[in-house]
Amino acid sequence: MYKIDVVPVAQSINPEDLAGRTAVVFDVLRATSTIVTALAHGCRAVAPVVEVQQARQMAAVLEGEGIPVLLAGERGGRKVDGFPHGNSPLEFPPEVAAGKTLVLTTSNGTRALAAAARGARAVLVGSLLNARAVAGELLRLGQDITLVCAGSEGRFSLEDTLAAGMVVQELVELISGNRPEEGPLQLLPLDLSDLAVTALHLARAYRDNLRAAFDHSRHGRRLAAMGLADDLDWCARLNAFPVVPEVKPGEGDLLAIVTEQG
Amino acid sequence: MYKIDVVPVAQSINPEDLAGRTAVVFDVLRATSTIVTALAHGCRAVAPVVEVQQARQMAAVLEGEGIPVLLAGERGGRKVDGFPHGNSPLEFPPEVAAGKTLVLTTSNGTRALAAAARGARAVLVGSLLNARAVAGELLRLGQDITLVCAGSEGRFSLEDTLAAGMVVQELVELISGNRPEEGPLQLLPLDLSDLAVTALHLARAYRDNLRAAFDHSRHGRRLAAMGLADDLDWCARLNAFPVVPEVKPGEGDLLAIVTEQG
Repeated sequence: MYKIDVVPVAQSINPEDLAGRTAVVFDVLRATSTIVTALAHGCRAVAPVVEVQQARQMAAVLEGEGIPVLLAGERGGRKVDGFPHGNSPLEFPPEVAAGKTLVLTTSNGTRALAAAARGARAVLVGSLLNARAVAGELLRLGQDITLVCAGSEGRFSLEDTLAAGMVVQELVELISGNRPEEGPLQLLPLDLSDLAVTALHLARAYRDNLRAAFDHSRHGRRLAAMGLADDLDWCARLNAFPVVPEVKPGEGDLLAIVTEQG
Repeated sequence: MYKIDVVPVAQSINPEDLAGRTAVVFDVLRATSTIVTALAHGCRAVAPVVEVQQARQMAAVLEGEGIPVLLAGERGGRKVDGFPHGNSPLEFPPEVAAGKTLVLTTSNGTRALAAAARGARAVLVGSLLNARAVAGELLRLGQDITLVCAGSEGRFSLEDTLAAGMVVQELVELISGNRPEEGPLQLLPLDLSDLAVTALHLARAYRDNLRAAFDHSRHGRRLAAMGLADDLDWCARLNAFPVVPEVKPGEGDLLAIVTEQG
């Protein structure tokens, strides 16, 4: 029986609690949705970087080695000054993404990836866009699971927890072979923490209208008020891509390279 | 518009975030359910005490003053050695409770009450047993609201968050004058944090079978395995009592006296 825990805010990760487990990191609005989109659209790799200055250096080093780079990042939801790209998945259609390496720094998501990479046996990148594919990879890996929500400014995030719940829902469906959306909550054969149960309830509540969750989320409403409603529409597309990005430890403590698996 | 936040685990309370607000503390299994029951059954007051030795001293002092006392407490779900009472609401029927002062120390709940009392303008005691009464008192007080879940051993608790969500649901019903349990989530006229929205979804998911939430909760299952299923049945009785206990600051930092309000 798989044990499934959910970490509500990445800042509260205890690396020791991740030992031997597969972690999935969710920063649905928008870092992990952007990583999934970029890889689905042909990026060779994504380098999530915590600090802005590190991102600039990383991009310069890669370009010096002849690797074509997309330098992207946001702070407070807005593009980093001087960066060619922000953190919108819509900035990376196939004609932009193909063959490139995306160097990405964001407020919460890249920190969450770095934190998870310090403790877990494997780290996957999750979103609504690839929930079913992530669930399939989790079953293939066969380890206990920690679903890590990046959170919004250190607080519980509705959309990240919802995405974690969608992965739990997909696990239930893959294992049981049916779609138990109605009727009593199906917990077996999963050993769910209380927050994992809660996340599954969110998945059931929003399954027919994932976009509504972003309207109920403070971060979602803030992005909409900034004119980014198209990003929200994109990030709500359940199972649009069969991509499962996996974080591979890179040089040093803060660098990880994400490539597509599965 | 009322702002409503939910603190998932009392250990993470920041007293400054409670300034000027009304806090409601939930430790549904079982401390706050026991406090509500004891007051509904005629206890004159409850003294929640953090440490076992303090509870013994408090009981001795009160008895020395001629005040009839019930000394009660648990650690790890079991009665404290040498205490006449544990932490079961079933231990305090009217014939036991009437006219007594309950001195109570528990693993999580009394700490949560003490923590909330350090920051909030007023602190109420919440449970499924008195959700509607608490909602009515919150409207009467007219302040912004922080719903404080005690949590289980420092972790997110399904049942505490569910009870917080039931209070939100009751607030929605009291304000809107109807029962919008079905259809799209009604958020207005409340400004809900992401975790408050999540709690409201739990209330909707479990409203017709609150007892099932305890079977989905790790702490609930542990208590059931200890032979305490009757306690769980009792704690699941929605709106059984119109009691709203309020914490009044007592002497020193750790003592608070809870009496019935409203």
